[in-house]
Amino acid sequence: MKVIVVGGVAGGMTTASQLRRIDHDAEIHVFEKGPHISFANCGLPYYISREVEKRTMLVERTPEDMEKRGIHAHVAHEVLDVNTKNKTISVKALETGEIKNIRYNKLVLSPGGRSVMLNALKNVPQSFVLQQLHQLDSIEDYIETHNVNEVVVVGTGFIGIEVTENFVRRGFKVTVIQHNNDIYSPIEPDMKEFMYDTLKEQGVDLKLNSEILEVDGNKATLNTGEILNAPLIIVAVGIKPNTTFLEDTDIKLEKGYIPVNEFGQTNIKDVYAVGDAILTHYTHVPEKPVNVALAWPAHRLAFVIANHISGNTEFKHDGFLSTSILEFFGHTIAQVGLSRKDLDKDTKYIDHIQANIAGYMKNPEKIHARLYYDDDGKILRGVFVGKEGVDKRLNVLATFMRTDGNIKNLINIEVGYAPPFGTPKDLLNMIGYKAIEKLKES
Amino acid sequence: MKVIVVGGVAGGMTTASQLRRIDHDAEIHVFEKGPHISFANCGLPYYISREVEKRTMLVERTPEDMEKRGIHAHVAHEVLDVNTKNKTISVKALETGEIKNIRYNKLVLSPGGRSVMLNALKNVPQSFVLQQLHQLDSIEDYIETHNVNEVVVVGTGFIGIEVTENFVRRGFKVTVIQHNNDIYSPIEPDMKEFMYDTLKEQGVDLKLNSEILEVDGNKATLNTGEILNAPLIIVAVGIKPNTTFLEDTDIKLEKGYIPVNEFGQTNIKDVYAVGDAILTHYTHVPEKPVNVALAWPAHRLAFVIANHISGNTEFKHDGFLSTSILEFFGHTIAQVGLSRKDLDKDTKYIDHIQANIAGYMKNPEKIHARLYYDDDGKILRGVFVGKEGVDKRLNVLATFMRTDGNIKNLINIEVGYAPPFGTPKDLLNMIGYKAIEKLKES
Repeated sequence: MKVIVVGGVAGGMTTASQLRRIDHDAEIHVFEKGPHISFANCGLPYYISREVEKRTMLVERTPEDMEKRGIHAHVAHEVLDVNTKNKTISVKALETGEIKNIRYNKLVLSPGGRSVMLNALKNVPQSFVLQQLHQLDSIEDYIETHNVNEVVVVGTGFIGIEVTENFVRRGFKVTVIQHNNDIYSPIEPDMKEFMYDTLKEQGVDLKLNSEILEVDGNKATLNTGEILNAPLIIVAVGIKPNTTFLEDTDIKLEKGYIPVNEFGQTNIKDVYAVGDAILTHYTHVPEKPVNVALAWPAHRLAFVIANHISGNTEFKHDGFLSTSILEFFGHTIAQVGLSRKDLDKDTKYIDHIQANIAGYMKNPEKIHARLYYDDDGKILRGVFVGKEGVDKRLNVLATFMRTDGNIKNLINIEVGYAPPFGTPKDLLNMIGYKAIEKLKES
Repeated sequence: MKVIVVGGVAGGMTTASQLRRIDHDAEIHVFEKGPHISFANCGLPYYISREVEKRTMLVERTPEDMEKRGIHAHVAHEVLDVNTKNKTISVKALETGEIKNIRYNKLVLSPGGRSVMLNALKNVPQSFVLQQLHQLDSIEDYIETHNVNEVVVVGTGFIGIEVTENFVRRGFKVTVIQHNNDIYSPIEPDMKEFMYDTLKEQGVDLKLNSEILEVDGNKATLNTGEILNAPLIIVAVGIKPNTTFLEDTDIKLEKGYIPVNEFGQTNIKDVYAVGDAILTHYTHVPEKPVNVALAWPAHRLAFVIANHISGNTEFKHDGFLSTSILEFFGHTIAQVGLSRKDLDKDTKYIDHIQANIAGYMKNPEKIHARLYYDDDGKILRGVFVGKEGVDKRLNVLATFMRTDGNIKNLINIEVGYAPPFGTPKDLLNMIGYKAIEKLKES
């Protein structure tokens, strides 16, 4: 059996590795367009501040490593087309320009996404996106050769925020450009007022309702007329699935994403998809489709696909909760479940603020939680912001939402209590008690 | 309706408060033997180090507070007997010596436990237990009047460890006496070797296989012949249920504990019990009885009882997981599920050690986890030790054990991942993957 994997980062490389563990006979090839496989995407921003001390720590596996494990990993090989009738792919070796057709028995698509570059910044030498290891290298080279200590970050999503924080830690003067006034849009406006204050405290110059119209040398002109010093620009305005090579194939796409079923299969037999380019559904609200471009979902589905390819149908994918967490200058911002945009506007919710540890201890820190629920009490979305202990409550809620998920039953959760760790009735217990009262009224 | 509550700390006072919220008409009396109601038991050791800065922070409610809320709380009133046929209790006012019989319609027993005082130390003026606020006061008075800066702690259970740590933080010279060589016995010996090292690093003089035979002035003689300086002795060798006053009643006791059903009812109609003196069962292994002398279980069952008294049978108690957590000089020691002694000796387990955050970040700290499971994969017991992130994994596992609980399904848990918070496949996910392999072999 010949298995071809398109894309050699998290989803693709994990599928290949898992399959190798299970199936000792399959011939496995991985084609990666970029120059590296299996690097730590999520760690890239942390190299900017040298929180990740050495670049080598970000390289998890090389093609040589994979070869030793019996996986043929081909970097700088771009897959141009898929012929699902003949079961072939067409691959271009980027160094030589040579194009080959290669047959497969099973095909796994893990093309990932690409960071969007704004038109006005496309031909600007100091403008970069940060999604791949070679892009990080380019940024670091540029900083060194141009002696840069100032950066403009465009966008305040996950990556924009992480890049901002790490440049601040590095000692850069940081300006952040946001096209509207809603920074880190995944979170409710009234829960993140502290973010604006914190950016100010950290010396970040935040320009709201702003866009870069043009760049001339090191000067960027905004729509507001303001002219900024912009010797380095990081663009973090979103990600699009890398699926244009599939547009003329029989493989179904929805708004560019590849829908998959419970085994990670596409609409075409023997073609699977995993990672940032897929479309699946929420675990707790299966009728709602979702794309979750995060590491855990990629690893999870890779395992299901590897098993299915090797004939084991025991493991099924049942969607994702889209659990996510963000560090923000000592604060933590976390959410699980339906996104703000996937939630009906009039959905009921409970707000609750409680200390992370016993109030009589030194330095208790408040956590603000908001849980949305439907008329039956099913939790649809949870949001948490605070300094300490946010991750703990998020993870408990995410675990609970996979199994029980009724807001009233939060009273039953029995977490570990001692004064340095919580309160006898923890934050989520209290929300359960509040919910019982609220649902009684309605 | 007249409701009488015996015991005015966590379980009893919470039952009274919950009932008051639900039922505006009931006449509620609470009788507490000690001089205070509703103080923060769990916080007492933390006052020693002044982590809790003021003693007043430990007093949650006074009888005057309760009176305002329509609850009659009587301190220094000892309940001597219960007559379940006449539905009366006999109460002694400790200040006057007066004894009264009082009728009840519903009786809630929350007598708690009492710390055991060793015979050899009973008449030693500098020897104390620490379980109640007035005992903390006595210790602090003694320290001040005798100018003490040295302490001998007898016992290494939960309280012994907390007292030790807080005296070290206060700058005391601390000696710890353990009757065998197994300190903090709830945890497996091979998982807690660091505890011995840490005590040494902290300057604590640990005397294993030792007991105090006699005390003469400030000198204590051990069974080993050694003579110690012992100007202050804290005895923390265990707790016994305060149920001798029930021994001649119709209320059933098992080894001194009061068995209760899913509504907190004893064997006698209209008599409930809650708190440290009750016997219930494990949630996940209902056939195994357990006594869980912790705060959350008391609060949880108080709610169930208050509802049942007021005629609402919607809420049921389904046992406890016995989730517990202990801070230990920057380490965390946590467990959930069956205790070591309630576990069959040959129970299978998976050991797993994994960093709490991404390995390329600064200062990842290892967590050692051990999960015991039965032949069907049901998780019976989980133990975690480490420095950072132990509490988070404990709470996720405890939440999971209430609902799903199969070790193989740990692969499905979707927690929040970003490099400062974890790894793409978190520790519990990895244990799930290991378990799938292990259960395949067997």
